[in-house]
Amino acid sequence: MNFRSDNTSPAAPEILDAIVRANAGKRPSYSDDDATRRVEAMFRDLFACDLDAHLVATGTAANALALAALTPPTGAVLCHREAHIETDECGAPEFFTGGAKLVLIDGAAAKIDPEGLREAIARNARGVHSVAPAVVSITQASERGAVYAPDEVAALADIAHAAGLALHMDGTRFANAVAHRHCHPAELANRAGVDVLSFGATKNGALAAEAIIVFDRTRAGNVERLRKRAGHLVSKHRYIAAQFEAYLDNDLWLRLASRANALAARIADAAGDWLSAPCQSNQVFIKPGAAILAKLRAAGGEFYDWGGDGAGEARLVVSWDQGEGDVDAFIAAMRAARAG
Amino acid sequence: MNFRSDNTSPAAPEILDAIVRANAGKRPSYSDDDATRRVEAMFRDLFACDLDAHLVATGTAANALALAALTPPTGAVLCHREAHIETDECGAPEFFTGGAKLVLIDGAAAKIDPEGLREAIARNARGVHSVAPAVVSITQASERGAVYAPDEVAALADIAHAAGLALHMDGTRFANAVAHRHCHPAELANRAGVDVLSFGATKNGALAAEAIIVFDRTRAGNVERLRKRAGHLVSKHRYIAAQFEAYLDNDLWLRLASRANALAARIADAAGDWLSAPCQSNQVFIKPGAAILAKLRAAGGEFYDWGGDGAGEARLVVSWDQGEGDVDAFIAAMRAARAG
Amino acid sequence: MNFRSDNTSPAAPEILDAIVRANAGKRPSYSDDDATRRVEAMFRDLFACDLDAHLVATGTAANALALAALTPPTGAVLCHREAHIETDECGAPEFFTGGAKLVLIDGAAAKIDPEGLREAIARNARGVHSVAPAVVSITQASERGAVYAPDEVAALADIAHAAGLALHMDGTRFANAVAHRHCHPAELANRAGVDVLSFGATKNGALAAEAIIVFDRTRAGNVERLRKRAGHLVSKHRYIAAQFEAYLDNDLWLRLASRANALAARIADAAGDWLSAPCQSNQVFIKPGAAILAKLRAAGGEFYDWGGDGAGEARLVVSWDQGEGDVDAFIAAMRAARAG
Amino acid sequence: MNFRSDNTSPAAPEILDAIVRANAGKRPSYSDDDATRRVEAMFRDLFACDLDAHLVATGTAANALALAALTPPTGAVLCHREAHIETDECGAPEFFTGGAKLVLIDGAAAKIDPEGLREAIARNARGVHSVAPAVVSITQASERGAVYAPDEVAALADIAHAAGLALHMDGTRFANAVAHRHCHPAELANRAGVDVLSFGATKNGALAAEAIIVFDRTRAGNVERLRKRAGHLVSKHRYIAAQFEAYLDNDLWLRLASRANALAARIADAAGDWLSAPCQSNQVFIKPGAAILAKLRAAGGEFYDWGGDGAGEARLVVSWDQGEGDVDAFIAAMRAARAG
Repeated sequence: MNFRSDNTSPAAPEILDAIVRANAGKRPSYSDDDATRRVEAMFRDLFACDLDAHLVATGTAANALALAALTPPTGAVLCHREAHIETDECGAPEFFTGGAKLVLIDGAAAKIDPEGLREAIARNARGVHSVAPAVVSITQASERGAVYAPDEVAALADIAHAAGLALHMDGTRFANAVAHRHCHPAELANRAGVDVLSFGATKNGALAAEAIIVFDRTRAGNVERLRKRAGHLVSKHRYIAAQFEAYLDNDLWLRLASRANALAARIADAAGDWLSAPCQSNQVFIKPGAAILAKLRAAGGEFYDWGGDGAGEARLVVSWDQGEGDVDAFIAAMRAARAG
Repeated sequence: MNFRSDNTSPAAPEILDAIVRANAGKRPSYSDDDATRRVEAMFRDLFACDLDAHLVATGTAANALALAALTPPTGAVLCHREAHIETDECGAPEFFTGGAKLVLIDGAAAKIDPEGLREAIARNARGVHSVAPAVVSITQASERGAVYAPDEVAALADIAHAAGLALHMDGTRFANAVAHRHCHPAELANRAGVDVLSFGATKNGALAAEAIIVFDRTRAGNVERLRKRAGHLVSKHRYIAAQFEAYLDNDLWLRLASRANALAARIADAAGDWLSAPCQSNQVFIKPGAAILAKLRAAGGEFYDWGGDGAGEARLVVSWDQGEGDVDAFIAAMRAARAG
Repeated sequence: MNFRSDNTSPAAPEILDAIVRANAGKRPSYSDDDATRRVEAMFRDLFACDLDAHLVATGTAANALALAALTPPTGAVLCHREAHIETDECGAPEFFTGGAKLVLIDGAAAKIDPEGLREAIARNARGVHSVAPAVVSITQASERGAVYAPDEVAALADIAHAAGLALHMDGTRFANAVAHRHCHPAELANRAGVDVLSFGATKNGALAAEAIIVFDRTRAGNVERLRKRAGHLVSKHRYIAAQFEAYLDNDLWLRLASRANALAARIADAAGDWLSAPCQSNQVFIKPGAAILAKLRAAGGEFYDWGGDGAGEARLVVSWDQGEGDVDAFIAAMRAARAG
Repeated sequence: MNFRSDNTSPAAPEILDAIVRANAGKRPSYSDDDATRRVEAMFRDLFACDLDAHLVATGTAANALALAALTPPTGAVLCHREAHIETDECGAPEFFTGGAKLVLIDGAAAKIDPEGLREAIARNARGVHSVAPAVVSITQASERGAVYAPDEVAALADIAHAAGLALHMDGTRFANAVAHRHCHPAELANRAGVDVLSFGATKNGALAAEAIIVFDRTRAGNVERLRKRAGHLVSKHRYIAAQFEAYLDNDLWLRLASRANALAARIADAAGDWLSAPCQSNQVFIKPGAAILAKLRAAGGEFYDWGGDGAGEARLVVSWDQGEGDVDAFIAAMRAARAG
């Protein structure tokens, strides 16, 4: 019953097989290989538009490189107060951007509120004394498991673009968001006005693979050099490309995410009034109080506290490979705890 | 007959197998797994001393993080004019260190000359107007395929330490250097005064695995946070650890390097007076002139020019998996080219 | 009736005279002159302790250099949400520190609340995923015109030091704070646990002169090189030293600040229930509503809105050279506006 | 007989008078004052073109801000090996640019050789593995006292622009260069293809005043924010503007430089075959050997050794206010030393 994080899971068999198959003979290094070309074409097909795809090994690198391409050091990144780039990346955005400031915005379920965005832009428009807002970054699905609808993304994109800002989407769990919406991926990305997308794969079944998808090259033209300079251009690039070939092939990415979402929904249904945030992805937030959480842990449940010590709230993350037995057992544990 | 680079080669079967075996069940992420603990213990055994080992996916990251831990932004990194960190990492050392300056030193076969090191230290000791030398970085084997002897390393370490500087070793091809010297690895590292070693594995049979070995924690105490901040703490850390477990197990690393060295030596022997640098690792430098290089390419040889266009010089790199047939064929091509 | 800012005022005659007197013959440049030595000695006398004093031309430079000396790039600066370093320096702290994060804390009258400080330290102590709090920065007098009492400073210093953090004080209006407290300057600085003080002079009668006072060299040993590297070591250093000689001589700094405080107090007294923050320095905050502010402006009053558009609040800053007539006229304008 | 540096000199009376005159009443701060507007207009007249002028207090700030505006962090600054930005600014260019690399070029008399420039550009055009040359920086007059002729500047500008690079001129001693050429200042700047000029005043009679002259806004549009962020927007801006008003008025800048040049020429003439570089500005380089230098010092001469310890070479800098008696005495000392 380990629901700590989706990054504790292994790689999907299809992805591991692709790595094994790629392990033959010499291949050009540093992204000059054919597999990388094929992945770029697959991404163009997936989003049905022209784009650049830059592959890296970690989500922090994908986010930080995207932001570095979208803001000068004198700029500001506007994001939700609970955004991963603010709370969990040890200042990587500040490092990669050369010291741009993260300006924090509130909003329910860790989604940026449009009014809050407008206010943050206005507040920082005081000439050279304040940093200049340059990019808005939203997380899809959010750090509270919520999914922005296409029109919600578009509304933020409109505000951003009208003010001359770019829109970045941290799509660590983009697959779970698309699976939740049952929509075309472009509807949550390029068609909604996203300029650069961090397209996650690692949490959803890859070994170590994330893609920086640049929809608008005029805003983010320097990613290649930034990536190399940051040590994120892997030399044996075939292996990262192989992961994406398998991940995108035959909708594996969506199937894995859909399965995790469905299991999470079962937990959320069983949680009833303990549910502390809408369950729209593979994350479940419950707030049954500290005593109940202790019981759930005593029963074998593993998960992180949320919202600070003593809040009595927990985050459960269902992985692509989570056993159904884990879910059944946890639901039973919740029932038992509730019963007494 | 592809001798372009050792990073065009695949992963060794033992290493791929280890990755496959690691692909089962949930594991703590972000380096909290048991395999990572085991790798650290293996490194302590290997160098017969206490140390910290930080694993990353690229050599540029290993070098740049090591340097960032060893110099403040106001410092200088002293290295050879042909050092990889100067010529081939797109300014990664400057980026990671917050803008430390690389001060370039000359020396035969891309090895730093002790007198040149002394002079560079003295030249930059003019108070606040110049940057303050903080770390010396040497490459083992060098970018010209030469290997520093233990006493050569120690001599540079003594100069560095006497002036208050640390010694970093870019060990992208450390395995080839140890194989060449037939010595204990500690003799070329900690016992010779190296403070931090970038211990390479990718070029020598790993998929994507490099280790930052910190022998002197007092000089480089902040690597963990620097690594996370740079997006180089991979989440599914088990896979990078698995590569090192296989790589270090039963001297695989030395066996792979020894084989490549031996094949390179055969080419060097056959090259005769074309040899333009001593062959002490898996790299062979020949300077037969542009016409001969054209013939070798016509015969199917693949390699990079060296020393600028028209220099008539080439670098041949023998990979861990290079077929003996490649070597035989290339030697034959050299003979044919020489004959006419 | 210009109460926009104290940096719209000229230099005090004593200070200008000192500059004129310094303008004779050749002097060693780059702080090697005798006047600079004398100023350092005067600062040691002033604070009755050993210290280093580094002179610069702007307050932003003084603050940012102090912070850069006190935190690594992976660290965090904890400050009040309204701190000048957060809101008005265009990201200078991020730039100088190499991208350290500013973590914002609340508190009445723009003073950091001890509980808020404890909470912020605890919240960011989650290992490598979060930045590491390294320094607390407080403003004396605060951006809301409030003065920390010696025991308030000491309480924050104790919390900071206990957690391994340094304490920086932005003393742009340190003179006004000391004048308000009628205490020895050391009581609000070194004796209260301040490690580095930005000792302002420009706003209080200098032409362009600020000092970085380092009480604890072990925490901030690299200021000299950081200053040069940032272009803040002025070449003809005699002139900045001359300003401080005059400023510190015969308590000029205190006399100028006391006068401004006294005039501000008269405005505050007259403001009555419009006063929106305690008046403890040369700043007065009133919140009479937008209509009254319009009347005050129509009567010739010049000042900045505070708290955002439409808040109906204003900040009045009294300069060292403010004419008493300005104050009388403004008080009369307030009475007239109130009367209707 | 102090010939150490022109920054040991005081401010010219006209400039000090202007500061004194500016010291009356309140003025808008942060460059919003009328005097700043007037200085910008004067610069437009001086160079007979549209331009932006940003005033700062130090030459290092002027250079580093100009470079930061002209190169991304992934870029390279190409400059002479002896350039002040490389040797004497403690890595300020690296700091301000976010870690751009300085690529060093040789050339006689510290002037960049066009062929060396072409070679350096070509050498660094190897895709993402090398930094991307972004700006060429030349010093006028050079660190060896030589002056680029207009067509020499234009030749370098053509090479730079053809390769997509900008041209920066470090004009710390631009006045001396113009005085030497007896040409219109535009001929050595905008008309010759200079994109951004660091226009020095401090060494030539100002107290602390340098201007960043942006001729091509499309290449350097962000100076204002970079300046504020670096703490180089002085608050009481009237005083820096006043210095430039006096400096530019009635050709004071040219008169001061011409006088210094003429005195330097007298020393150079008397130096005869000791002269080790052409004297084209206010700097004289002599290489009479260590014994003669010792004699000159014994006679009261003050100057810096040049070219390293024991080179037997010296640099003499004549200031705007150098007494003719100093020059006469030094020439006599040279004669005496030569005589034996």
